[in-house]
Amino acid sequence: MGNRITNLFGIKYPIIQAGMVWCSGWKLASAVSNAGGLGLIGAGSMRPEILKEHIQKIKKATNKPYGVNIPLMKEDVEKIIQIVLEEEVPIIFTSAGNPGKWSATFKKENRLVAHVVANTKFARKSEEAGVDAIVAEGFEAGGHNGREETTTLTLVQLIRNSTSLPLISAGGITNAKSMLAVMVLGAEGVQIGSRFAASLESSAHENYKKQVIESVEGDTVLTLKSLMPVRFIKNRFYEQIQEAEKNGASQEELLQLLGKGRARISIFEGNIEDGEPEIGQGSALISQIQPAAEIVDEIMAGVVTLNEKLFGDDKFQF
Amino acid sequence: MGNRITNLFGIKYPIIQAGMVWCSGWKLASAVSNAGGLGLIGAGSMRPEILKEHIQKIKKATNKPYGVNIPLMKEDVEKIIQIVLEEEVPIIFTSAGNPGKWSATFKKENRLVAHVVANTKFARKSEEAGVDAIVAEGFEAGGHNGREETTTLTLVQLIRNSTSLPLISAGGITNAKSMLAVMVLGAEGVQIGSRFAASLESSAHENYKKQVIESVEGDTVLTLKSLMPVRFIKNRFYEQIQEAEKNGASQEELLQLLGKGRARISIFEGNIEDGEPEIGQGSALISQIQPAAEIVDEIMAGVVTLNEKLFGDDKFQF
Repeated sequence: MGNRITNLFGIKYPIIQAGMVWCSGWKLASAVSNAGGLGLIGAGSMRPEILKEHIQKIKKATNKPYGVNIPLMKEDVEKIIQIVLEEEVPIIFTSAGNPGKWSATFKKENRLVAHVVANTKFARKSEEAGVDAIVAEGFEAGGHNGREETTTLTLVQLIRNSTSLPLISAGGITNAKSMLAVMVLGAEGVQIGSRFAASLESSAHENYKKQVIESVEGDTVLTLKSLMPVRFIKNRFYEQIQEAEKNGASQEELLQLLGKGRARISIFEGNIEDGEPEIGQGSALISQIQPAAEIVDEIMAGVVTLNEKLFGDDKFQF
Repeated sequence: MGNRITNLFGIKYPIIQAGMVWCSGWKLASAVSNAGGLGLIGAGSMRPEILKEHIQKIKKATNKPYGVNIPLMKEDVEKIIQIVLEEEVPIIFTSAGNPGKWSATFKKENRLVAHVVANTKFARKSEEAGVDAIVAEGFEAGGHNGREETTTLTLVQLIRNSTSLPLISAGGITNAKSMLAVMVLGAEGVQIGSRFAASLESSAHENYKKQVIESVEGDTVLTLKSLMPVRFIKNRFYEQIQEAEKNGASQEELLQLLGKGRARISIFEGNIEDGEPEIGQGSALISQIQPAAEIVDEIMAGVVTLNEKLFGDDKFQF
């Protein structure tokens, strides 16, 4: 079993663990890499010296490929990139920003770069910027999200039609069925967030993991659309946003309400009601906290079984 | 090729043409039924005597199974149902309402009934009401839509896990790839709206069909969420809604702004800017106006080819 994504990154399975804020430290990323996927450290919630520590620890924890996810809008992005270069991180996923700004730097240093997009415009920009792969993230995804609200079902095909680069699908992929479905749509790999956010090795707070596995359909919502859309579990803070928006709050007033550290409050500190417990719609399909390796194994075994069941005699059994 | 959906309705292919307002008259429905799918007349935009005319015409235009879609919130629903019963329509799809109210009536008269839902709660209610099949409609779909905003990728699995009834997936399905993808997720058939709304036999205005095939990603939006969420192509009317909502308009003020006949204005009369040109996100993947039979043939041929390409030697080629 091998395709452009597994070959590009030198991994066994085309499963990438998303570099999520407050969840994706060296423990989670190394567990996924050791299991045959690609683990990503999430730099979005790390100060530069913390990131350095996590990179140094993952090097000891795995000899498999790993990467770092960098949200390009991060205030200290230059320092973050300096560390990623100095520490010789082999794979960089960039998100939340223009891929044109840093891709050339990474490529000059012979790193592999993938960029996360939510529309074809940025997919084309990414290709022009020389990235090695594209992550197409649909409306279902947790955390920050595109303005077009294009869902994974539609987005994978649109991006597949607009670029010939290796394509990873993200948003709403939690198990073997959704993985096989997006590969039918044209993806060559998947980036999975929510399922790993609730994994044993995730550095998220127990309250948050519990909330994720207990959440059901309709519990997450894409909100704060006039600032920067973000999907999280509906809570007291969401009610405050709704109230403010109903009363015609300006962007400045919403920014003030938002304040700082909302993701940290919920995901890392475990205060679900007053922060942003970021998670995707797929959380409705997640019912237990498992070790990351078990998640990888279960999904890959499920894909093989599903393949055989559906396509066993060369033809889909309607 | 046969499964629970094709066997239930006595059709060749598990493709159902959605009974859309202002698009789905006897011409479109008979074209789809004659092509081996299931054509539905959309009663939502018909006065009872017009519906009767369409039913009488479709009986002459096809000897294949056909059906009528009835939005249960329609003001004159009792007259509509009376006609459907009198005219011996064999298959009834109900939507936008509680399946408990009329299913027993239809079943007593030996009709087949499917109900359209956007969440598991109504899927279970439908099963209790004795329907024969469920249509699970995701956030991507055009027109009126669920409040949970659950996308097709997530919804199909959730509904599959909550009912053992034959399951039809709707929302974002426009071609062979999306059809095969939702069947991997657990659907046994698809209901396709947007692609047929822009078909040759659709009774929609040429301006509307042109707008649909020209629309690109991000052009549709789910709006009027405080009344009854509806997805249509962004236009002048949408800007007015946004302005009103920003100014804190009450539900009454929004209802007044909405007025009557917005779907008719755009879809049937061709005034795109001032009505609701209802269409799904999949419109970004639709690029030509084709005869309905050609659409059915193309999708089914595409599914077979895709099957062979992806699963040809008994294993998905990553």
